[in-house]
Amino acid sequence: MTAPVQRGTIERAAVVGCGVIGAAWASRLLLNGVDVAVSDPSPDAEQILTEVLANAITAYDELGFPTDQQGSYVMAGSIAEAVADAQFVQESVPERPDLKASVHAQIEAAVGPEVIIASSTSGIRPSEMQKGMTHPERLVVGHPYNPVYLLPVVEVVGGEHTTPDVIDQAKAIYSSIGMKAIHVRVEIDAFVGDRLLEAVWREALWLVNDGVATTQEIDDIMTHGFGLRWAQMGLFETYRVAGGAGGFRHFIEQFGPTLEWPWTKLMDTPDFTPELVDKLVAQSDAQSGMHTVRELERTRDRNLVGILRVLEANEWGAGTTIAAHRAAPS
Amino acid sequence: MTAPVQRGTIERAAVVGCGVIGAAWASRLLLNGVDVAVSDPSPDAEQILTEVLANAITAYDELGFPTDQQGSYVMAGSIAEAVADAQFVQESVPERPDLKASVHAQIEAAVGPEVIIASSTSGIRPSEMQKGMTHPERLVVGHPYNPVYLLPVVEVVGGEHTTPDVIDQAKAIYSSIGMKAIHVRVEIDAFVGDRLLEAVWREALWLVNDGVATTQEIDDIMTHGFGLRWAQMGLFETYRVAGGAGGFRHFIEQFGPTLEWPWTKLMDTPDFTPELVDKLVAQSDAQSGMHTVRELERTRDRNLVGILRVLEANEWGAGTTIAAHRAAPS
Repeated sequence: MTAPVQRGTIERAAVVGCGVIGAAWASRLLLNGVDVAVSDPSPDAEQILTEVLANAITAYDELGFPTDQQGSYVMAGSIAEAVADAQFVQESVPERPDLKASVHAQIEAAVGPEVIIASSTSGIRPSEMQKGMTHPERLVVGHPYNPVYLLPVVEVVGGEHTTPDVIDQAKAIYSSIGMKAIHVRVEIDAFVGDRLLEAVWREALWLVNDGVATTQEIDDIMTHGFGLRWAQMGLFETYRVAGGAGGFRHFIEQFGPTLEWPWTKLMDTPDFTPELVDKLVAQSDAQSGMHTVRELERTRDRNLVGILRVLEANEWGAGTTIAAHRAAPS
Repeated sequence: MTAPVQRGTIERAAVVGCGVIGAAWASRLLLNGVDVAVSDPSPDAEQILTEVLANAITAYDELGFPTDQQGSYVMAGSIAEAVADAQFVQESVPERPDLKASVHAQIEAAVGPEVIIASSTSGIRPSEMQKGMTHPERLVVGHPYNPVYLLPVVEVVGGEHTTPDVIDQAKAIYSSIGMKAIHVRVEIDAFVGDRLLEAVWREALWLVNDGVATTQEIDDIMTHGFGLRWAQMGLFETYRVAGGAGGFRHFIEQFGPTLEWPWTKLMDTPDFTPELVDKLVAQSDAQSGMHTVRELERTRDRNLVGILRVLEANEWGAGTTIAAHRAAPS
């Protein structure tokens, strides 16, 4: 079911919305030889792009990917100008349905009906965004994980009007820039990854709120425990191993019943009271305030590059996606 | 607050219950020079121990830790025999409160009141286990993550009778065998890590149950996305970076409101109907059935060793715990 890995599927793309996510999309596209026209009304957009691109170039150098055949970018004066010549549009504007609708209308007014519009939204259903579109069949969600230039996964989700051909094309385009595109076949709020993330986030907020653990302690438990697991085997494969030779059925027999225990508090959402926000901010400052965000980004990228190289050498997990892209014909 | 890193805090330990977790505890102790007496009524216990220990020796070799100064182990004929000479007891029997109570009573009958009894339980509160104990003050939870010989985290949780000195001693012992011991100061069901894991597990079950994604797809989204993040930065530090220069307060302002969206289904527990179990088993077989559990364990360990070495070289996260242990005086 994996789309064939092939470079050069597209030569020109538009990135609409150039915050951290949009800039990282642009960086991935550029470093895979795609020319990118960028649209963003913010005066900071180009600076964000150049900073993120610099991080991405460093990371690709360390990963051993060529960085001397970059596409070129242009900051366009409008959405219409950015998308006019694009073969593919990646939209990453803020998560407001009204704003998305307005931006998609401006994009549609300036491109042919065959051009795919992919939204980076992490929460808005594609069918919702398709309402009012002239050619809703070419809209998909292409939901990435930051840093987009390094983390290979993208969730591809169609709405009720999206055609299967558009899903296939979007997957092929993402594959051509080194990503593992996973088609989420049922349209649900928050798709797959962010549902899992939200579950952890809610529970972690309760733990901080109730004074059970600090942000530092929770992060330490993750980075010294199950985070290391999940970099290389997911939830289900890890539990299969825990089940031993009896496989997954044995695991469920052994551990399934504990699900009945009323452990988590996820039934409701903690209120962001001023007290909780202050607590989170103070704990986060104590944990990470000695580093700038740029320093943390560089540390993160250096760690991710090292981990990806280990996984590539071991021919496992995300390393297989990196290896396939390294070997891909152009 | 970190206990001083020092090898050789204990010379003799007892491991009561030698399934996968107990065997991995024994392996970590042995490879840190501690003699271990093992008690388990199963005829398979010694085989499990030797298999897990072989994996651990391979991993420590690859990690560059000495494996030629191992402690020695003995399979004891009874709990009393196993614990008679122990300075520390780690209990890892199945998660049944009645069984834990019986085992703890047998341990108490055979050791002095100063010997710490640490339970590997992932779900039973220490105060619950302290009921009926003769010296409840020396019981703590020491909850590890498998593979215990590689993943450095252990959650230390006291019950209402546990003395602060016992918490400190337990932390020092765990630290002396290369672990990062995190004291969970408020006693709650499932402590910290398993609350987060349970939240993900429930939501993932819903996703499979509702046909949104397969076990393979969910695992791919994890191992190609946020799993890579969490191997090196936890939830809170990752989100701090996402908030940019505005820090954690900005992140909450930007993303906190989406918590109000009714995304997750975690309010209730999916029933393990025969249909759901069959689906999980079939998908897991399709995903991982081409590998034996032993092969998966070796792959996992090779990946973890590689990741830990990257983090140690980068002086970050779990790598700092490995580095501190490598440099620890004995």
